Amino acid sequence: MTDPAAQAARENPQGFEVDGNLTGYIGYNLKRALSIVQSDLARVLSAFELRAVSFSALSIIVDQPGLTQTRLADALQIERSNLVNIIDELAGRNLIVRAPVAHDRRRHALMPTPAGKQLAAAMQASVVDHERKLFAGITAAERAELQRILHKFRKSAAA
Amino acid sequence: MTDPAAQAARENPQGFEVDGNLTGYIGYNLKRALSIVQSDLARVLSAFELRAVSFSALSIIVDQPGLTQTRLADALQIERSNLVNIIDELAGRNLIVRAPVAHDRRRHALMPTPAGKQLAAAMQASVVDHERKLFAGITAAERAELQRILHKFRKSAAA
Repeated sequence: MTDPAAQAARENPQGFEVDGNLTGYIGYNLKRALSIVQSDLARVLSAFELRAVSFSALSIIVDQPGLTQTRLADALQIERSNLVNIIDELAGRNLIVRAPVAHDRRRHALMPTPAGKQLAAAMQASVVDHERKLFAGITAAERAELQRILHKFRKSAAA
Repeated sequence: MTDPAAQAARENPQGFEVDGNLTGYIGYNLKRALSIVQSDLARVLSAFELRAVSFSALSIIVDQPGLTQTRLADALQIERSNLVNIIDELAGRNLIVRAPVAHDRRRHALMPTPAGKQLAAAMQASVVDHERKLFAGITAAERAELQRILHKFRKSAAA
């Protein structure tokens, strides 16, 4: 005995058409696209035992050694309390160190360790590869246009 | 005495440039764009006392009266256990009813009430208005292109 709903779900794993009236919203389509990316990214990053947000934090610290926790929280748009857990995780794995800031005992500059730089490079290569494969169904011109429009939107929303 | 990091955060509320090396990833840009949309959408939907996912569920039920919970969970790409809470919330507010499915006592068809249809229409108008204002910084052609590329990506990822 077959279950028609379960069969429909198997044949339609992305839920197409059922959500037809929502696909007119840009927000809904951004969410569905991001879900696909996040699910594949989680698979890729699990090999490194770091979540996406920790990868983002490590990447920024490697790119801008010495930035403060406040500035990193601002860059990642997360609460400072959440950032503390991420910083603890990265420091606990010896990927970064907290260095004192001259003339300001309350603040710390975040510095990558050699191991942190090495891991960030390996992860970045994996993430580039994940995006290359995942977005193979749209052309290079479409990927570039997608990036351009998303940047333009973000800038306009910040203005 | 000014705090340079706090001042930078005020002048740069979207964290531009600090996250420079991440903006090459499509996934990261999708996430940042979606965060902007979700934050504005939450403000708009709070007037109706429903979250975005409950709005999505109600919209689908109004659009496709009689669909099953399994099919709705599939459309929204959420676990059935999470869907139960949403269904309870919508039914508790008399926006939908669970109708029995002929010849299958285990399943229920979801039907909107007149109040549910009315609220969905009012919410949809508000969400259309929110997107029109929020995306005013990109052109109509760019919005259409963004939608087209996101749809194409989603279809390609499902294939």
